[in-house]
Amino acid sequence: MAMATSAKEVQDGLEWRVRVPQGSLAVVVESQPVWVDRAWAWLTGIVLAVVSKAVGFGRKAWSVGSDDPRRVVHGVKVGTGLTLVSLFYYTRPLYDGVGGWAMWAVMTVVVVFEYTVGGCLCKGFNRAIATSTAGFLAVGIHWAASKAGEKAEPVILSASVFILASAATFSRFIPAIKARFDYGITIFILTFSLVAVSGYRVDQLLFLAQERVYTISIGVGICLIVCVLVCPVWAGQELHLLVSGNLVKLADSLQGLVEECFMEDEAEEGKELPTAKSRGYKCVLNSKATEDSQANLAKWEPGHGRFRFRHPWSQYLKVAAAMRYCAYCMEAFNGSISSEIKAPEDMKSHLRGACIKLSLDSSNVLKELSSSIMSMKESRSIQCLVVEMKNGVQELQVALRSLPTDHVKKHRATLSLMEAMPLVTAASLLIEVSERVESVIEAVGVLARLASFEPSLDRKKASSYSSVVPQDESVRPQPQEV
Amino acid sequence: MAMATSAKEVQDGLEWRVRVPQGSLAVVVESQPVWVDRAWAWLTGIVLAVVSKAVGFGRKAWSVGSDDPRRVVHGVKVGTGLTLVSLFYYTRPLYDGVGGWAMWAVMTVVVVFEYTVGGCLCKGFNRAIATSTAGFLAVGIHWAASKAGEKAEPVILSASVFILASAATFSRFIPAIKARFDYGITIFILTFSLVAVSGYRVDQLLFLAQERVYTISIGVGICLIVCVLVCPVWAGQELHLLVSGNLVKLADSLQGLVEECFMEDEAEEGKELPTAKSRGYKCVLNSKATEDSQANLAKWEPGHGRFRFRHPWSQYLKVAAAMRYCAYCMEAFNGSISSEIKAPEDMKSHLRGACIKLSLDSSNVLKELSSSIMSMKESRSIQCLVVEMKNGVQELQVALRSLPTDHVKKHRATLSLMEAMPLVTAASLLIEVSERVESVIEAVGVLARLASFEPSLDRKKASSYSSVVPQDESVRPQPQEV
Repeated sequence: MAMATSAKEVQDGLEWRVRVPQGSLAVVVESQPVWVDRAWAWLTGIVLAVVSKAVGFGRKAWSVGSDDPRRVVHGVKVGTGLTLVSLFYYTRPLYDGVGGWAMWAVMTVVVVFEYTVGGCLCKGFNRAIATSTAGFLAVGIHWAASKAGEKAEPVILSASVFILASAATFSRFIPAIKARFDYGITIFILTFSLVAVSGYRVDQLLFLAQERVYTISIGVGICLIVCVLVCPVWAGQELHLLVSGNLVKLADSLQGLVEECFMEDEAEEGKELPTAKSRGYKCVLNSKATEDSQANLAKWEPGHGRFRFRHPWSQYLKVAAAMRYCAYCMEAFNGSISSEIKAPEDMKSHLRGACIKLSLDSSNVLKELSSSIMSMKESRSIQCLVVEMKNGVQELQVALRSLPTDHVKKHRATLSLMEAMPLVTAASLLIEVSERVESVIEAVGVLARLASFEPSLDRKKASSYSSVVPQDESVRPQPQEV
Repeated sequence: MAMATSAKEVQDGLEWRVRVPQGSLAVVVESQPVWVDRAWAWLTGIVLAVVSKAVGFGRKAWSVGSDDPRRVVHGVKVGTGLTLVSLFYYTRPLYDGVGGWAMWAVMTVVVVFEYTVGGCLCKGFNRAIATSTAGFLAVGIHWAASKAGEKAEPVILSASVFILASAATFSRFIPAIKARFDYGITIFILTFSLVAVSGYRVDQLLFLAQERVYTISIGVGICLIVCVLVCPVWAGQELHLLVSGNLVKLADSLQGLVEECFMEDEAEEGKELPTAKSRGYKCVLNSKATEDSQANLAKWEPGHGRFRFRHPWSQYLKVAAAMRYCAYCMEAFNGSISSEIKAPEDMKSHLRGACIKLSLDSSNVLKELSSSIMSMKESRSIQCLVVEMKNGVQELQVALRSLPTDHVKKHRATLSLMEAMPLVTAASLLIEVSERVESVIEAVGVLARLASFEPSLDRKKASSYSSVVPQDESVRPQPQEV
C-alpha cells in the first residue's frame, strides 16, 4: 500500500493536496502515511456521517410510519391517483396541440390530493369554483378589451390583471376568507392572469375553457374517488377522536400530578418523576392549531359514520378551549408542587386524602365526558359524578379550614403560613381546576344538544347535562375562548 | 297602482303565486296589495341584507388594511409583479408551439410571491431545486425506459411515478421535512410526473427543461426583485418585533392584573374590569403558531437591517416559550382573583403594598428585557432590576409570614385559612411568576450572547446577564419548551 501511494504521490495532480518540500525525499516518504491516513480518516468520516445520517433518517421515517400507518397508506394513495391519471392520458396523444391538457389533470391530482377527505374536498371545490369564475371573468374582460381597439386592449388587460390580483391578494388577509378560500384565491389569480395574458381570441378561449373544465374535473374526480374509497381519513372523525382523547389525557394527568405531589416523599429514592402520564396536559396546551385546521376542514365533509353533514364541529373547538383553560391551571399547579419550599409532613398528610379524592372525582368527570363524546350518547352518570366532585371540593375546603387550627394547637406560636403556602396554593389550584371542569361540562352539554347525542335511558324531560348546567346559560357562547 | 296590479293578476302566469278563489273579485282586489307588499318586503329584505353584508365586509376589509397598511402594499406588489411578467411576455408570441412558456412564469409569480421575504425565498428556492432535481431524475428514467424496449417503457415509467410519488408524499409527514421543504415536495412530484408522463423523446425533454428553467428563473427573479425592493417585509424583523412587543404586553398585563386584584373594591361602582391592558397575556398564549412560522421563514433570509445571516432565530422561540410559561401562571392568577370567596379587607391591605411592588418589579424586568432585545444592546440595569425583584419576592414572603400572626391577634380563635386562601394563592402565584421571569432572563441572556448584542458601557468581563444567570447553565438548552 505504501508503494502504491508513493507512486500516486509522484503525479502532479495531487500536489495541491500534499505540498511537500521538493528537495527532501525522506520527508516525502515520511509524510505519505500521515497524509494517506488523514485522507482515509476524512473519507471514512464522511461515509460514516452520511451512513449514520441516513440510518437516523430511516429510523425517523420508520417511526413516523409506524406511529400511524395511515400515513404510509396516504403515500400509496397519492401514487395510485397519479398513476391512474397518467394511465388515463397514456392512451391518448399527450401534449398535443396547444397547452398539454394531461398536464392540468396531473397538476390537479398533485395539488388537490390531501391527507383528509375534507382537505381534498376543500381544495377541489376551491379549484373548480375559482377556475370557472376567473375564467369567465377573464373571457368577459378579453371580449370587452377586444372591442376597445388595438391600442387600448393591452392597457385594459394589464390594468385588469393588476387590479384584480392586488384586490384578491389583499383579501387573503381577511381571516374569514383566509380560513376557507386561501387556495381558491391563488387559483383565481392564476387562471385570470393566464387567460388575460394569453393572446387568444374569445372563441378560442371558450374552447380552451371547456377543455380545462373537462381535465380538471377528471383530476378532481380521480382524487376524490381514491381519497374517499381507499381507507378514507375524515378530518371530522380525527377532531372527534383528538378532543375525546385529550379529555382522557387531561384526566390522567390531573390524577398523576396530584399523586406526584403527595407521593413524592415516599418515592424519593426511586425518583421516576416527572412521569409521562402527568405531562398529558401539555398535549392539550399544544393542540390548538391542529384542532382549528381539522374543524375547518371537517366543515367541508359530507356526513360520514356517525356524523351528519352539519355536525357542530365548531363546538368541539369550544370544548377544547375549555380544556385548555383547565390545562393552564394544571400547569401552574405543576409549578407550585415543584416549588423549593417543602410543606411539613403533617400538613401534607392532613390534606392528602381530600386532594387525592378531589383529583380523582374531577378526572372521573373528565373521563365520563370523554366517553360520552366518544360514544355520542348522553352520559347517565354525569350528574352523580358532578355531585361527587362538588362534595370533593367541599371536603377539601373543610380540610383546609381545619388545617391551621390543628397546626396552631400543635405548635402554638410558631404557625407560619410560609410553610403551608405551597400546599395551600396547590389545593386552591385544584379547586380552581374543578371549577374550570364545570365549563368543560357546559361545553360538552351544548355539544350533546347540538349534535343530538343519543339520550340516556333514564332520561326524564331535559338532557342529563341540563340539570347540571342551567339551560339558558349554556346556549350563550361561553367566554372561555382565549 | 291598484289598477295595474289587478290587470296583472288576470294573467295566468301569476296564478301560482296568488292562488285566489276564482269566484270572488272582491277578495282578489283585497289580496293584491298584500302579495305585492310581501314581494316588495322580500325584495327589499334581500337587497338590504346584501348591502349590509357588503358594507360589513367592506368595513372588515378596511380595518384589516388600516391595522397594517403593509397588507395593502403587498396586494399592490403582487399586482405589480404579475403585470411585469405579463408585460415581459406580451412582447413575444404567447402560448407558441408547445406548452405555453409564459404560463410557467406567471404561475411562478402567483405561487411564489409571499408576504415576507423569507417566504418568497423559501418558495423560490424550493421551486428551483425541486424542479431541477425532479427534471433530471425524470429525464434519466425516461432514457433508461427508452432503452428497455417499447413494451417495458410504460411499465417502468408508471412504476417510477408510483414509487416516487408515494415516497415523496410520505416524507411530508416527517416534521423536519414538512417545516422546510413541503412546497418543494409538491413541485418535485408535479415536475417528475409531468416529465415522466409526457410522450417526448429525451432530446426534446432536454430542450424543454432548459426553457422551463429559463422561465422559472424569470418568474422567481421578478418576485424577489419586487418583494425585496418595494417595502420589504422581513420575517426575521417581524419575529423580533413580535417577541419584544409581547414582553411589554406581558409586563403591562402583570401590572394590570395585580392592580385589578387590589383596587377592585375601590372601583366596585364603576366596574370597568376586566381591562384590555391586563388581558395582554392572552396574546402571548396565542402567538406560538405565528412565532414558529416566522422563525422558520426567517432562517431563509439573508442579513437585513441589524440582523446578520445566521441570526439565532430559534432562540427567539425559546424566549417566547419562557414567556408563555409566565403567561400560564398569570392565567391561573387571573382565575384566582376572580374567585367568589372574597378576602377580608385588612388582609388585603396588609399584602397590597408588597404585591404591587413585586408586580411592578417583575414587569420592570420584563420591560427592560424587551428594550434590550429591541435595541439589541445588553442591558445596563438588568442586574439592579433583578436584585430589586428578588427583594420584592422576599418582602412579599415576609408580609405573608406576618399575615396570620396579625390576624390571630385581632380575631383570636376565628382564624380561617379559607378566607385568606384566594389572597395566599394569588400571592404565591405572583412569586411563581417572578421565578418564571428568571427563565425569561436566562433565555434573553443566551440570545444576547448568540446574537452578540452590543455590550453595555459599564461592562466588565462577562456579559451583564451572566452574573444573574450562571454561564454554564444558560448554555444548556432550557427545558421550558412545552
